[in-house]
Amino acid sequence: MKFRVYYEDTDALGIVYHANYLKYCDRARTELFFKNNISLEADGGFLVIKSINANYIKPAYFGDMLEIDSQITSLKKASAFIRQTITTKKQKIFEMDICLVYVENNKPRAMPALYHDLFSKHTDIIT
Amino acid sequence: MKFRVYYEDTDALGIVYHANYLKYCDRARTELFFKNNISLEADGGFLVIKSINANYIKPAYFGDMLEIDSQITSLKKASAFIRQTITTKKQKIFEMDICLVYVENNKPRAMPALYHDLFSKHTDIIT
Amino acid sequence: MKFRVYYEDTDALGIVYHANYLKYCDRARTELFFKNNISLEADGGFLVIKSINANYIKPAYFGDMLEIDSQITSLKKASAFIRQTITTKKQKIFEMDICLVYVENNKPRAMPALYHDLFSKHTDIIT
Amino acid sequence: MKFRVYYEDTDALGIVYHANYLKYCDRARTELFFKNNISLEADGGFLVIKSINANYIKPAYFGDMLEIDSQITSLKKASAFIRQTITTKKQKIFEMDICLVYVENNKPRAMPALYHDLFSKHTDIIT
Repeated sequence: MKFRVYYEDTDALGIVYHANYLKYCDRARTELFFKNNISLEADGGFLVIKSINANYIKPAYFGDMLEIDSQITSLKKASAFIRQTITTKKQKIFEMDICLVYVENNKPRAMPALYHDLFSKHTDIIT
Repeated sequence: MKFRVYYEDTDALGIVYHANYLKYCDRARTELFFKNNISLEADGGFLVIKSINANYIKPAYFGDMLEIDSQITSLKKASAFIRQTITTKKQKIFEMDICLVYVENNKPRAMPALYHDLFSKHTDIIT
Repeated sequence: MKFRVYYEDTDALGIVYHANYLKYCDRARTELFFKNNISLEADGGFLVIKSINANYIKPAYFGDMLEIDSQITSLKKASAFIRQTITTKKQKIFEMDICLVYVENNKPRAMPALYHDLFSKHTDIIT
Repeated sequence: MKFRVYYEDTDALGIVYHANYLKYCDRARTELFFKNNISLEADGGFLVIKSINANYIKPAYFGDMLEIDSQITSLKKASAFIRQTITTKKQKIFEMDICLVYVENNKPRAMPALYHDLFSKHTDIIT
């Protein structure tokens, strides 16, 4: 997935505001579902974020075209770990490991088979 | 109501990003309800925005303390016009007229009496 | 220009947060420059927003694909009026008139010829 | 530091959007500087974010009043680790460890004495 950096994404230091990298990664995860015609609000529950470990390597700037790659690194019944990296101009500028948990009424439960299948097909890098 | 300008609010031009002035005004309207212990999700419907006419007078910068003033300029059964101005360092930097309509199931209807009373008490400037 | 509605764009009312429509319009204006290889930071000055008149017609929802159309409605030496509309599922949901002014050191001046030419070529609708 | 959750902070799932917790923490760090009259753009360089490790414990909702506590957990010449927690209604809902590095021309260097002193005074919890 590719996303342009717009003014809304930058801050007065002239670079992309740090919280916004999480938005690009969220967009890439969302598109993974949309491109496979799988609803994100299926079956009574939804995926919530449990943890994020993020490394900021280099800044991104207004106008940059960012490429987000996603790889499932661990998959269990109720949870998935995804490694997402952002590159621009062939340089990796950001990397994060995110843990998602499927919850219903605020309690973890086995994710829908459609979700599990989608994740298990993407243990290689999704561009 | 007063709100500080943080990095999240600014952009690479070094000023507050234009869409974010609408957020400060929304916060001020929301606090008007909270400070009067009136729920924004009362009675089956809610207030939606119908129109905004905004004038950008001067830029605001990181660290500025913004003061938002609100005045009801017109009040009907289902709708209200509010004039909101933002000042910093004693200079008016932004002004907008916003029209809110109370809707239920996407149709306008008379707003709850609590809302109408709240608005009618604030035809003078609310700081 | 087309942009998907992501979670970041929505709010607890289940619809796109009102200030975010201004972001989609800004992205469309920005892409107009990028697609024509014209810098937005050329020649010592930049375009600032003078006024916005916006009408909210229908709400947009998570997952919607929004199409932004832009049309220059008035062009002067230092300023341009642009009408931008957002449609989804063949329905117009948002429309705004925005006035941009070219400024240098906070003062209006004639915009660069490249900008004026770009705008004058787009008095018809830009999709 | 306390901040209210406004509509802008929430998403269509009815909870605070995950990236926005980073904004509250940033506001708390920024206020630490402002309340001590120390500029964030002093001496030619500035603090950048190197890494964030965040745990999402419970969701926050529209209207919640969030309290952000910050504690310096490690302080070196050029960098500082800060643990920031967010509580509401006496429950911890979010915790993150953030590493900040002082950079000038994209290279780490010793932070200004004012910054080092400020951080060293706050190895206990700052509310």
